[in-house]
Amino acid sequence: MRRIDLNSDLGESFGPWPMGDDGAMLSIVTSANIACGFHAGDPAGILGVLRQAARLGVAVGAHVGYRDLVGFGRRNMDPSSDELIGDTIYQIGALQGLAKAGGTAVRYVKPHGALYNTIAHDQRQAAAVIQAIKAVDPSLILMVLAGAPIVEQARSAGLAVVCEAFADRAYNADGSLVSRRLAGAVIHDPEAVAARMLRFVNQGRLTAIDGTDIAIEAQSICIHGDTPEAVSIARTLRERLVGGGVALGSFADG
Amino acid sequence: MRRIDLNSDLGESFGPWPMGDDGAMLSIVTSANIACGFHAGDPAGILGVLRQAARLGVAVGAHVGYRDLVGFGRRNMDPSSDELIGDTIYQIGALQGLAKAGGTAVRYVKPHGALYNTIAHDQRQAAAVIQAIKAVDPSLILMVLAGAPIVEQARSAGLAVVCEAFADRAYNADGSLVSRRLAGAVIHDPEAVAARMLRFVNQGRLTAIDGTDIAIEAQSICIHGDTPEAVSIARTLRERLVGGGVALGSFADG
Amino acid sequence: MRRIDLNSDLGESFGPWPMGDDGAMLSIVTSANIACGFHAGDPAGILGVLRQAARLGVAVGAHVGYRDLVGFGRRNMDPSSDELIGDTIYQIGALQGLAKAGGTAVRYVKPHGALYNTIAHDQRQAAAVIQAIKAVDPSLILMVLAGAPIVEQARSAGLAVVCEAFADRAYNADGSLVSRRLAGAVIHDPEAVAARMLRFVNQGRLTAIDGTDIAIEAQSICIHGDTPEAVSIARTLRERLVGGGVALGSFADG
Amino acid sequence: MRRIDLNSDLGESFGPWPMGDDGAMLSIVTSANIACGFHAGDPAGILGVLRQAARLGVAVGAHVGYRDLVGFGRRNMDPSSDELIGDTIYQIGALQGLAKAGGTAVRYVKPHGALYNTIAHDQRQAAAVIQAIKAVDPSLILMVLAGAPIVEQARSAGLAVVCEAFADRAYNADGSLVSRRLAGAVIHDPEAVAARMLRFVNQGRLTAIDGTDIAIEAQSICIHGDTPEAVSIARTLRERLVGGGVALGSFADG
Repeated sequence: MRRIDLNSDLGESFGPWPMGDDGAMLSIVTSANIACGFHAGDPAGILGVLRQAARLGVAVGAHVGYRDLVGFGRRNMDPSSDELIGDTIYQIGALQGLAKAGGTAVRYVKPHGALYNTIAHDQRQAAAVIQAIKAVDPSLILMVLAGAPIVEQARSAGLAVVCEAFADRAYNADGSLVSRRLAGAVIHDPEAVAARMLRFVNQGRLTAIDGTDIAIEAQSICIHGDTPEAVSIARTLRERLVGGGVALGSFADG
Repeated sequence: MRRIDLNSDLGESFGPWPMGDDGAMLSIVTSANIACGFHAGDPAGILGVLRQAARLGVAVGAHVGYRDLVGFGRRNMDPSSDELIGDTIYQIGALQGLAKAGGTAVRYVKPHGALYNTIAHDQRQAAAVIQAIKAVDPSLILMVLAGAPIVEQARSAGLAVVCEAFADRAYNADGSLVSRRLAGAVIHDPEAVAARMLRFVNQGRLTAIDGTDIAIEAQSICIHGDTPEAVSIARTLRERLVGGGVALGSFADG
Repeated sequence: MRRIDLNSDLGESFGPWPMGDDGAMLSIVTSANIACGFHAGDPAGILGVLRQAARLGVAVGAHVGYRDLVGFGRRNMDPSSDELIGDTIYQIGALQGLAKAGGTAVRYVKPHGALYNTIAHDQRQAAAVIQAIKAVDPSLILMVLAGAPIVEQARSAGLAVVCEAFADRAYNADGSLVSRRLAGAVIHDPEAVAARMLRFVNQGRLTAIDGTDIAIEAQSICIHGDTPEAVSIARTLRERLVGGGVALGSFADG
Repeated sequence: MRRIDLNSDLGESFGPWPMGDDGAMLSIVTSANIACGFHAGDPAGILGVLRQAARLGVAVGAHVGYRDLVGFGRRNMDPSSDELIGDTIYQIGALQGLAKAGGTAVRYVKPHGALYNTIAHDQRQAAAVIQAIKAVDPSLILMVLAGAPIVEQARSAGLAVVCEAFADRAYNADGSLVSRRLAGAVIHDPEAVAARMLRFVNQGRLTAIDGTDIAIEAQSICIHGDTPEAVSIARTLRERLVGGGVALGSFADG
């Protein structure tokens, strides 16, 4: 029986501003990437989400990002390595504290937004994030983009790594994501997303945007929950996977 | 042989802005209250101080404060209990992560500035801080103002409590501190400070500003290090205590 | 023909987080209280709202608040007078710059949240806000709570003052607002709100929560737009006022 | 008689953290680049510096930067053009408000740190800053690096531009600054700095680090004031220029 993890970004409300439907997504996913306060998330709100995750048995990861609240961590920055090490440890530690209070524990780290994209290939920033994780808890798993150079860099450094595929994103023939600026980059049809991911889970293969059949190695599928439509896609995906005989569970419990 | 702890607020630099002489103070104190990023302190700078504290065997505490950087946590605020619980856990957790990376561990919590003064007597905010500490690690010791209502409140809630006296502050006959707005509130003469504290350690007594002899129950002495003069007072105090046969050591190692 | 102003809080989105339906509200109100970045609002978003306000001829005010983003400016704080003067001027100036770029100009100042409530009666903080407005532009009008002590304080200091009534809030017999913590504090029925305000505009009177008939002196009515229900109440109110022969227009154009 | 402007970065304290000796520098320079709160500077502190500048007749410029307080605006970022336009207008407007309250007016704009370096050559970000200045006040002068592409870009867009030379920095033969990472990049001897700048003012020429004699076109000299040594260099420079018959005065008063 094939097994896969479903992950989503949660805890991204901030003060008076809600974002996404965390409650709905926690009933769908098996791993929750929880904002740590630098790109989104305030402590009281994060704690509330962690309590729900604990209750539902959803694994929790630290969704660390650049210190850029107004830009939601989506803008490129070039912190020094010391700054990035410090910021990453700080965010993981803060989430560990809140997770403890919420009745759960941080199991993995998934960098967010511009940091996620940058460390996929930028060795210096990747090294800082890897060093930070090892310093705070070397048993934490690093979740990154399937096929990116950081996969080997992190494994060589001794970290366990989990790769993820993106449920609603089109892929290029080389395994990279089609840029959001291009037509067809995002797949909106719930059934198309589900069929695509079911094939991926069963065969490890996807059809790229140019029709090429490609292999993707990933242990988790990233789904979004920031719109009602996204929640509906996520729910359909979960149902089709379960209906297709796929076991859902976090890699962290593997 | 009498024994006492010396504590000071450290790690309060922020980005390009230095504050105090952390290196000098770490060679004087036995407990370091480390800023956690809300009233002061950036992660990379905090990590540097924690590494020094680890090397020198100085016990480390979380100096948690209101989320008010520009006001340095000195302005009164009325966060909801949920906000204060979340903010306190977040700061402690962040410092725990950095402490782990720096080769040490958080042993106690000393609230900062307006939060320190408020929870001394405000039961609601005190309860939030106490609940936060218990949720993240009930073995953490709470450091508070000697004689304040929070001492009993925290002990009743099951927390270990350490009380502190202020080396360079004048006391009223009721054991409270003389307001900084009044003449004579701060004692500037290093030898006067040292003599006063030596008597306090040996006899548990101080002379209040009106000449009354009062008893103070405290296991730690707070000293400042934010000016060259303050460092010099701290150094003299340490020398006179040691010279007077007092053993210096953190309550956390007691 | 009676004339009244309708005002609402706008520009309160922040980075990736939307708030309210500014476009809809700008087609309803005659004065827009625009967030200035301290409690809400980012410059690019504020500029967008200002451009719309300019296009629609809606008068613009600076909705200045405490520097407390995560708390949305709703938490009490005690800044020094110098801090509050500086913060108020800074926010007004920033909005003036954006308003100029957006093709309009700041006509009035309406403090937000905890600052609004505090200066209604706290003379020291009120004096700081008044001094700030006079220093940056003495022709700016101050919008405050009808019946509050600040009305006289500001007028004595030479500022023009506009008072506001709250469309959906119940009043006590003494003219103060019923606390949100009490049942009946907020009126949810659109027609009830409209009838109440139509009477207020025509007769200057409202029925207090205990049945007493009270007089309210106000030149503006505050309406909310942060939920779809609120927008609907606002739209009904506008229609009933216009249908009732009331002229709508900003006091700033009076 | 040759005439030159001396400019320096001031108002960069933040809350409890001082930076530099603004009082001393205001008695030396003819133009003050005042922080606007995004990379440094809090409103009350900025207002105090503006009052001093007004009293001493020092021209005031808006030292706008990226929204990155902990990084002091020295880290590269890639805001969208809309974000950068909004942020720039916001900062200029805020300083205009404080300048009005302080008895002076903003005359020019000098971008700070990473933004300064980026817009020297990055046409997109440069265009955003130029558009922002024109939108808020097209009579503001833009101060930039002598010889950089932005000089022409801004002039073509209709802005008045002032170029600056750096008093204590070595130049390459192509007129660019020697990287701070290389030996000899910074000149520490006050008399060497003064002699070099006196020649520059009289002849428009400097000796590059490789011995080449190069021409620099600049109407202002940037001097630092962030250390006691820097203030001393600045004072010597001023004395040598005045002693050499150079008239000091702001380009803004030209």
